[in-house]
Amino acid sequence: MINLIIGGARSGKSNYAERLAKALFDNNTSKMIHYIATAECIDQEMEQRINQHRLNRLARFKQNTVELHEVPLELGDKLKQLNQPNNIILVDCLTLWLNNQLYYSPEQDFADLCESTSNLINNLQADVIFVSNEVGLGIIPHNEISRRFVDEAGRLNQAIAKNSDNVIFMLAGIEQCLKGAVYV
Amino acid sequence: MINLIIGGARSGKSNYAERLAKALFDNNTSKMIHYIATAECIDQEMEQRINQHRLNRLARFKQNTVELHEVPLELGDKLKQLNQPNNIILVDCLTLWLNNQLYYSPEQDFADLCESTSNLINNLQADVIFVSNEVGLGIIPHNEISRRFVDEAGRLNQAIAKNSDNVIFMLAGIEQCLKGAVYV
Amino acid sequence: MINLIIGGARSGKSNYAERLAKALFDNNTSKMIHYIATAECIDQEMEQRINQHRLNRLARFKQNTVELHEVPLELGDKLKQLNQPNNIILVDCLTLWLNNQLYYSPEQDFADLCESTSNLINNLQADVIFVSNEVGLGIIPHNEISRRFVDEAGRLNQAIAKNSDNVIFMLAGIEQCLKGAVYV
Repeated sequence: MINLIIGGARSGKSNYAERLAKALFDNNTSKMIHYIATAECIDQEMEQRINQHRLNRLARFKQNTVELHEVPLELGDKLKQLNQPNNIILVDCLTLWLNNQLYYSPEQDFADLCESTSNLINNLQADVIFVSNEVGLGIIPHNEISRRFVDEAGRLNQAIAKNSDNVIFMLAGIEQCLKGAVYV
Repeated sequence: MINLIIGGARSGKSNYAERLAKALFDNNTSKMIHYIATAECIDQEMEQRINQHRLNRLARFKQNTVELHEVPLELGDKLKQLNQPNNIILVDCLTLWLNNQLYYSPEQDFADLCESTSNLINNLQADVIFVSNEVGLGIIPHNEISRRFVDEAGRLNQAIAKNSDNVIFMLAGIEQCLKGAVYV
Repeated sequence: MINLIIGGARSGKSNYAERLAKALFDNNTSKMIHYIATAECIDQEMEQRINQHRLNRLARFKQNTVELHEVPLELGDKLKQLNQPNNIILVDCLTLWLNNQLYYSPEQDFADLCESTSNLINNLQADVIFVSNEVGLGIIPHNEISRRFVDEAGRLNQAIAKNSDNVIFMLAGIEQCLKGAVYV
């Protein structure tokens, strides 16, 4: 079952994603939760934010039920590697992964990357929970790099949403079902 | 029947608007689709974006069923001219039209423009599909011109939504019905 | 009954909040409407906007049924002071109040402020209508202060939404119920 949790900054996306991961785990405690963290520390402020975020998040799971994977770029490979019915994979978040891709490989074909990633999730046996930011509902940014980021993020969200079973939009900590069903 | 398709950048608005235009056409193939493009090339990056956008879009229709109109400013006149029950009019998009109005006639009375445009659609016999961006859900911009744009865009969206039969909000390529009904 | 009206710039939040205040008043005309304005004039453009906003808003109520309170900072105290079952309190808006807090007391503990404010509303006997901006659905801002504002605004919205009976999301002047019920 593929789930996409989409929303703005501080809308409660990660929180909801964890509640969902826990609910899937409680339903079958022989499963294992894999927390894929895509954030990469570029500066000190970001490092502080990331560490705080991860500590807050991981503290909510029991230590032997969750494994942390730091995956700034090779998300496809990691998903293939962890693709077993007994795994619950929480990817937090797609937007930072895309940001890393744009930072390290701006010349790659993003339509390709987007398509291969969304095709991949069609063949997953693990439960996957993707967290992603919606960034396109503000004013169009003045600089070209930001505009490109908005474009690529929107395309990626559409592609992942298309191949997800459930799409949840978070707003002020409240979940809205855009597609499929709400479990928690 | 007046339809407003609203959403963020790369949310699938144009795509949904075309699917709707096609569905209305398939329902009565004696009708004609009029694609009103409001974008105007200001720089090279924009020109490239616009041409790619139009080529992608128009390629989805059969050549003899769709007519392209480039209307950066005189939208009201064009809607009146095309106002016949046999016409399906797709306006892509209101936000760029508003941008052009602010660029060429910043001193005009925008409350007037907004009211006359929304009043006009009350008297249309053609099927109309408006595409428009929601731009007010990010942080309030620092410069006055951007703030004004956010204000005018929000007012225009409210006025058009009020006089539309159906209002659809696109998010990650998924349609949500805000008012009226979803046809496709 | 606690209500949170959330939405982007020019989405119709204040308008909806007033319609709700009026409906609650019409239901029991012995009640009194208290309009808490949190905006504070920092520059001339802002002063102009604020005065126009307030004039437009207050003109919709009868003079003897509404009282204006200018409360840029001490919102908690004012809510406690006005906390009587016969009062309808309209707070327009939480986002400007937060902005004032960040401007005058950036060093205070915002988690504390957020928690004490959301706890407070659990104990209110008055009808309260909070207006608040969603600002987290655009691109992440480049400067640290704006990022912090987005973070704190998101956290505040989540906390208030959690303790509200009804949460309404405004988009293009159309209300969507996120939680509880829609009255008007």
